[in-house]
Amino acid sequence: MKISHIEHLGIAVKSIEEALPYYENVLGLKCYNIETVEDQKVRTAFLKVGDTKIELLEPTSPESTIAKFIEKKGMGVHHIAFAVEDGVANALAECEEKGIQIIDKAPRKGAEGLNIAFLHPKSTQGVLTELCEC
Amino acid sequence: MKISHIEHLGIAVKSIEEALPYYENVLGLKCYNIETVEDQKVRTAFLKVGDTKIELLEPTSPESTIAKFIEKKGMGVHHIAFAVEDGVANALAECEEKGIQIIDKAPRKGAEGLNIAFLHPKSTQGVLTELCEC
Repeated sequence: MKISHIEHLGIAVKSIEEALPYYENVLGLKCYNIETVEDQKVRTAFLKVGDTKIELLEPTSPESTIAKFIEKKGMGVHHIAFAVEDGVANALAECEEKGIQIIDKAPRKGAEGLNIAFLHPKSTQGVLTELCEC
Repeated sequence: MKISHIEHLGIAVKSIEEALPYYENVLGLKCYNIETVEDQKVRTAFLKVGDTKIELLEPTSPESTIAKFIEKKGMGVHHIAFAVEDGVANALAECEEKGIQIIDKAPRKGAEGLNIAFLHPKSTQGVLTELCEC
């Protein structure tokens, strides 16, 4: 697998409205988009830092996986997304061959319309890991 | 504050020896240095991905803060380190002025000899945050 960079970091927050003043006014980053992903029951805010995006994830329902993550572990980094150069399908095939537990058996469309797939944290040293088209 | 990029991600692992095969053989990243930081009771392994480093943190004692983090939350992302362009001392002064709770009142030397300081996760939306000299 060839990874070029960290495409984004998903960070679970209770409230985007409460989180943005820290990211914008203290760290000096700029939010360029907020969108709701209905089927994931989250609202997301995007900020850019270097070649990486920060994706703030706010649960829109107590059944959201983000709500459950916050309940269990508190707010914090929820997942790392790596940009793969040779396509997500190829990367998934390589992961399966190497015995990595995969959440998405085939690439699907994620935020911003990119092809993505998740690997299970049981196989990735505890870090929920997303592979993402460049 | 002017942040140029994410300098590194600190990831808590139980064992660098167990973690490296995933990072090197599956993700295809390369570990370029392993060092022990006695006073922090951790052993660290560094890998580069884009303009960001991944710093694997293995506790060398049950009293290590990394051991306690793993016990409480499991393995996973422990902190985010941002590279600040205008110096860590200036960034700290700005944080204090804006009411952010600071762990290191003045810059100190961190891994790789860089000036660093930590902000408290209570003030940073749950993410232990390091400011780091470029």
